[in-house]
Amino acid sequence: MIIEKKDMKIEDVVNMRGGAGTVIKETIAPAEPSVHMRLFAKFTIRKGCSIGEHTHTAEVEYYYILSGEGILTEADGEKVVKAGDVVITGWGNSHAIRNEKDEDLVFVAVIPTEK
Amino acid sequence: MIIEKKDMKIEDVVNMRGGAGTVIKETIAPAEPSVHMRLFAKFTIRKGCSIGEHTHTAEVEYYYILSGEGILTEADGEKVVKAGDVVITGWGNSHAIRNEKDEDLVFVAVIPTEK
Repeated sequence: MIIEKKDMKIEDVVNMRGGAGTVIKETIAPAEPSVHMRLFAKFTIRKGCSIGEHTHTAEVEYYYILSGEGILTEADGEKVVKAGDVVITGWGNSHAIRNEKDEDLVFVAVIPTEK
Repeated sequence: MIIEKKDMKIEDVVNMRGGAGTVIKETIAPAEPSVHMRLFAKFTIRKGCSIGEHTHTAEVEYYYILSGEGILTEADGEKVVKAGDVVITGWGNSHAIRNEKDEDLVFVAVIPTEK
């Protein structure tokens, strides 16, 4: 089955997880009740915007950075992430991400559940 | 946790699933025994190369096309897929994909398991 780009749902999410500004969320594939994955989406974060800190319990979130640069906050502090890097957060840990650059930060997010 | 692009495993897979030529596989995140996802990778298929037909049972594979154009074969025939499209194949169905264009076909593949 193919879902074409033109048929994907695009939303502006305001203050996502308590973050600043607006984050653009494009649902790549809607969650299927029969599949162990609750999110598969592309996020675009413009300069000055962010996804606030939140915890992943019983699931793991993967951010695969497609373009731009972000500042990721995890328990051990802040780190810069760039195109080609992946962020893995689960098992009760938390993360937040923001963009301080002029270029949009774009990444794919996948959330499979834990066994 | 961050895995940087430079630390990702890149492999040349010859005749993948019986397909033609070589497919470049970059593992975005290795499979974790505690997570319901057995693959998260980026594939690059050059002109004339392909991933052969194969079936997904008890799991679902998602191809999110990043760039280029491919010809997808499913039970109902062949269709063109382009950047921004997603292919969803599971529940005992099969698929194959090939590239006939000069531009590389690049996509992210995710395989969560079925419930």
